Amino acid sequence: MTPLSKSVNTALPLAITMGDPCGIGPEIIVKAFVQDAQSVQGAFVVGDLGVMRRAAQLLGPNCALTVVQISQPAEALALPAHALPVLQVMTALPFLPWGQIHPSAGRAAGDCVFWAARAALRGEVSAIVTAPLHKEALSAAGDPYDRYPGHTELLQAESAVFLQKNVRDVPVRMMLANDELRTVLVSIHVSLRRAIEAVTFDNVLQTLGITHAALSATLGRAPRMAVAGLNPHAGEGGLFGTEEVEIILPAVQQARTMGMDVVGPIAPDTVFMRARRAAGHNGDFDVVVAMYHDQGLIPVKYMGVEQGVNVTLGLPLVRTSPDHGTAFDIAGLGVANASSMRQAIRMAHTLAVRGP
Amino acid sequence: MTPLSKSVNTALPLAITMGDPCGIGPEIIVKAFVQDAQSVQGAFVVGDLGVMRRAAQLLGPNCALTVVQISQPAEALALPAHALPVLQVMTALPFLPWGQIHPSAGRAAGDCVFWAARAALRGEVSAIVTAPLHKEALSAAGDPYDRYPGHTELLQAESAVFLQKNVRDVPVRMMLANDELRTVLVSIHVSLRRAIEAVTFDNVLQTLGITHAALSATLGRAPRMAVAGLNPHAGEGGLFGTEEVEIILPAVQQARTMGMDVVGPIAPDTVFMRARRAAGHNGDFDVVVAMYHDQGLIPVKYMGVEQGVNVTLGLPLVRTSPDHGTAFDIAGLGVANASSMRQAIRMAHTLAVRGP
Repeated sequence: MTPLSKSVNTALPLAITMGDPCGIGPEIIVKAFVQDAQSVQGAFVVGDLGVMRRAAQLLGPNCALTVVQISQPAEALALPAHALPVLQVMTALPFLPWGQIHPSAGRAAGDCVFWAARAALRGEVSAIVTAPLHKEALSAAGDPYDRYPGHTELLQAESAVFLQKNVRDVPVRMMLANDELRTVLVSIHVSLRRAIEAVTFDNVLQTLGITHAALSATLGRAPRMAVAGLNPHAGEGGLFGTEEVEIILPAVQQARTMGMDVVGPIAPDTVFMRARRAAGHNGDFDVVVAMYHDQGLIPVKYMGVEQGVNVTLGLPLVRTSPDHGTAFDIAGLGVANASSMRQAIRMAHTLAVRGP
Repeated sequence: MTPLSKSVNTALPLAITMGDPCGIGPEIIVKAFVQDAQSVQGAFVVGDLGVMRRAAQLLGPNCALTVVQISQPAEALALPAHALPVLQVMTALPFLPWGQIHPSAGRAAGDCVFWAARAALRGEVSAIVTAPLHKEALSAAGDPYDRYPGHTELLQAESAVFLQKNVRDVPVRMMLANDELRTVLVSIHVSLRRAIEAVTFDNVLQTLGITHAALSATLGRAPRMAVAGLNPHAGEGGLFGTEEVEIILPAVQQARTMGMDVVGPIAPDTVFMRARRAAGHNGDFDVVVAMYHDQGLIPVKYMGVEQGVNVTLGLPLVRTSPDHGTAFDIAGLGVANASSMRQAIRMAHTLAVRGP
């Protein structure tokens, strides 16, 4: 992978949304501020002061961090180290128990994302890093929160409003990345049956176009892209499914005529291994386009979820997030691992410097 | 994983089928004999003398191995080290070019498997290790070879004949295993659409039963089994698919009432990571039951295909194989990696000692 940029874009503050207050989001943000003083410079939390203070208490009495309220994002740029700036964007929350689905928690988490999306679209923050929200809590919060299965769809809708476009004309894709592997998904939060239906010529080609554009900006050159098949052995010449021959290969060929560097479809059970960058293994590709959610996420997460970062490609803003959920089972215990959040913050800086 | 048994079952010889003569099968067998003198004691190749000699030549003039013809499997038990015994089970093959699909190659590869299956069923060999065959060559060989998509179906059919049962009454499942992970697949060589249809209560429960029985024999205790969901996030409570609620969970509950140690369905993108046994990571489960081919094979192969072994569970014989294919692109170059074949031979010995 390209080393992360040493130069942090300090022209604009970086917004980190608090996530579901009943999950591990607030805790991993606090830990990122403690563990990565360098990369959180200029970052602030979009959330609730009380929730963030309660999260800081999970680190014990020796935690040197001070949670402070700011009234404007720009104030985050001037704060000393060991301060965790919070912009209160909703009415102060009441006490909400850790690890439970609560409509108020879903609403608060959603409000943070709405606020951050609009700030990013207006150019007031350099990028957004989103802590995990709980989909059932978001759904329980009612309209408008329950319109969105997750962050991505919410950000897409807000971007469409900003761009004065139909949401269908703001196609986005999820990229998952860690130190070894990048993968971009043709579809995400739909059943496997619906994911197969989403493997169309247009969707595959669009995924390649979005991936090519986004990674060209990040890498400074055209990415070497590989496309996974849908079926075992990429259909084995049509014996185990025809989508490769009828849909995926034509899309790959079309992308090549458009100047993209892309190969495939390749057998799903070997393409990720071939793309993996590890000791003694250079990686044949910069990114693998996966046909459905788990095809791409299983290999990215296999080495340990704490290492993965989620990046939304195709939006007119930069957004990264840890690639894990709210972990209600360990919320409030102080044992959550902040590695993925820390990586997400570092990657947001990199992408903000180089463009979305 | 349980360490491999030190005591090799020398009561019966071990049969290694040559695989497609135009692929890397013969070469990785020769390399296993050179690199693992201990574990190949008592093993012999079911194949063609000329093909195996040509494969030995790939290792160069300093290769200390002598390819010898035997006329009975038992002769393999008495041979000195540095001998590679071959039982010629078909008419001597003509020269066949490396890396090409050839009906004669498919027929020869198939003949080896038919011979070995029958010998194992008659109790004349302790186990079978199968080198890769090429499915298109097998198909090109015509009847009866083209009836079988691969080894597994052929072995299942032969076992059914031997047991005087309908082939449907000899259910088998593929297990993939390496040092970190074991996974058993509900379905294998079918399109993803058909794989979804194969996720039925009966198939999931049967997979659990076969896995429980086979690994109980291997481990000497009931295996801790986890079941992956079919859909993203295991359906997220029905939001992204209903198979988990309607099919998988009832099958898991039924298996539990039958005394099996099983949990699930668990989100596919985290269950393999949780089961992984690595430094500092004990592994929550002994095995993961995967709902389709690539769900299980992507994580097993991600660390490198040379480490994986394929084991067929449910047969009245022991059969292992490397978890890669014929690699026509590198056949004849002498660069093939024999690690998976070596692991397959070692695991066959272990299973032969402890029962299938």
